[in-house]
Amino acid sequence: MENERLRAALTLLDVDALGQTCPTRKIVEQVTSRWGTLVLAVLATGPHRFAAVRDRIGGISEKMLAQTLKQLVRAGLVDRAVDASVPPQVTYSLTELGAGLATPLCELIQWLGEHTPEIVRAQQTYDGLTER
Amino acid sequence: MENERLRAALTLLDVDALGQTCPTRKIVEQVTSRWGTLVLAVLATGPHRFAAVRDRIGGISEKMLAQTLKQLVRAGLVDRAVDASVPPQVTYSLTELGAGLATPLCELIQWLGEHTPEIVRAQQTYDGLTER
Repeated sequence: MENERLRAALTLLDVDALGQTCPTRKIVEQVTSRWGTLVLAVLATGPHRFAAVRDRIGGISEKMLAQTLKQLVRAGLVDRAVDASVPPQVTYSLTELGAGLATPLCELIQWLGEHTPEIVRAQQTYDGLTER
Repeated sequence: MENERLRAALTLLDVDALGQTCPTRKIVEQVTSRWGTLVLAVLATGPHRFAAVRDRIGGISEKMLAQTLKQLVRAGLVDRAVDASVPPQVTYSLTELGAGLATPLCELIQWLGEHTPEIVRAQQTYDGLTER
């Protein structure tokens, strides 16, 4: 455990994503925004039309989804392809850069998925102790 | 690349963190909140007093930092230790669960750090094209 922690610490210090003026920090904030994470995770399972992303996530407004997708396209992580049909169909997919990001992102989500019962239990214990 | 994408997709589907009612989704949102990510990353480098976390992050209000730390303590990811000195000192550190989370989280931050130049370049190209 100590080794693992040390490795994580060194990994982090190596890139220093914490300084307020560091461009990485802004990118960390954008990508790990509430919706950014979920949209990237959906696209990691394959290309999706706008409505399909919206339906898979649930609870996201069309305006917020459009903003999130625009930021991800702008960052070069997502590709927006317009099909010349009537009406035109827009398909979103991960770029090669975005697919590279999907790997550590999905590993993080997987860790959280596997440890959800432990975390929920901790939250319930905390609430039980503080409500008394 | 196709293999990597497939692996990421399967990893994701395996935990299905996307459903609106899934408890993992709430946890993904909390942990990958703007400040949650940064606070966990700071604590991955070792235990910190409240003021030390605030100073390393920069730009976070004391109220928001207190809220973020409280949520992380509640989730069992961060330990809050009060030293019986005058005035009492409070130290925050990762729990064993939190240290486990730090590994994939720091890998994500490292990926973003390594690819920041590419992402910034994509953003500049996008802005150049859309401003015309």
